[in-house]
Amino acid sequence: MRDYVKSPMGIEEKSFEIIGEEMAPHNFTEEQLKVVKRVIHTTADFDYQNIIHFSEDAINKAKSILKEGKMIYTDTNMALSGISKPALKKLNCNVECFVAREDVKLEAKEKGITRSMAGVEKAVEEGVEFFVFGNAPTAIFKLLELVDAGKVKPKFVVGAPVGFVGAKESKELLEKYDIPYITIRGRKGGSAVAASIMNAIMYMMVER
Amino acid sequence: MRDYVKSPMGIEEKSFEIIGEEMAPHNFTEEQLKVVKRVIHTTADFDYQNIIHFSEDAINKAKSILKEGKMIYTDTNMALSGISKPALKKLNCNVECFVAREDVKLEAKEKGITRSMAGVEKAVEEGVEFFVFGNAPTAIFKLLELVDAGKVKPKFVVGAPVGFVGAKESKELLEKYDIPYITIRGRKGGSAVAASIMNAIMYMMVER
Repeated sequence: MRDYVKSPMGIEEKSFEIIGEEMAPHNFTEEQLKVVKRVIHTTADFDYQNIIHFSEDAINKAKSILKEGKMIYTDTNMALSGISKPALKKLNCNVECFVAREDVKLEAKEKGITRSMAGVEKAVEEGVEFFVFGNAPTAIFKLLELVDAGKVKPKFVVGAPVGFVGAKESKELLEKYDIPYITIRGRKGGSAVAASIMNAIMYMMVER
Repeated sequence: MRDYVKSPMGIEEKSFEIIGEEMAPHNFTEEQLKVVKRVIHTTADFDYQNIIHFSEDAINKAKSILKEGKMIYTDTNMALSGISKPALKKLNCNVECFVAREDVKLEAKEKGITRSMAGVEKAVEEGVEFFVFGNAPTAIFKLLELVDAGKVKPKFVVGAPVGFVGAKESKELLEKYDIPYITIRGRKGGSAVAASIMNAIMYMMVER
């Protein structure tokens, strides 16, 4: 049998050690660093060190909302799958991919908009205030439209849509609002990145 | 209302156009290029142009297996979520995340190995020959051990584990075997990348 590390937690610890050694000098707080390292762990892409941004006191703000046991919106089934269910359960939180709902699919088709946009509308109707975007810039634009219209005041947004059409712009616009956020600037991001940001925060709060 | 592209297919087409314009010169075949572009679309990371590798005639080989309506192994719920269910259905294929099964979890815990390793053992027992790895290098090592032991002759492997401990090595070793593959060399990869490779292949075969 070949000699390779087989313990899952052993692999993770060793990975975080390597990431810490190879990261460029930085000014992250200890808690921010946990988020940054987990994103790099998920992508093997050190560029995330440069493009992740935290609004003031973002992690504490996210934690205080999660402590209240909230419903969390995600825009893809992949982000939904990636967010730790045991951690959510311990926090008494739920996460739902509104985009996958039948009523949302129908509405998107009728209006000729993305399912992510229709999903955001539905989530806002149902009182969701914590949003995790890993896919669709259109969902962020839609959310900010609803903010402009006074229909929602989001308490936290993970803004990590990936892509070439609108992703960068959606995150730049988000950062202009008075909403606590963690964003990935530019084109990069994705469902796995969004999920890893959520997990990093939750793992600070609960035993694994 | 802000002016942004709201049609999902419009966004995808425009994205692929931009990716094509920004890619460095290359020698990909037309079909390989569809895979490469979809991976870049998923990650916004042009580095994938350099680190994706195809064994000889890989795409045709993958297609001919998928045409047979097979069970496909994945090593994470995220890859499972990311692989297009409508496309699978049209091909009469199934995908299962063996790692998430209760019997596999128990076995991994008892043996102190990763769930991905235990999941590969279970999949091989059940006759699976098409493997999609987006997370765990240990799963690739385990599969190759089972090949060495004459217990399985995989017909296709998507080798895209991400990470800092064993990922690179697992993919290097895989390429030494006489197994058709698409790999992401080095540390990068991930569930979303693995799923996008699968989707790119399936989208060549079915109407969306």
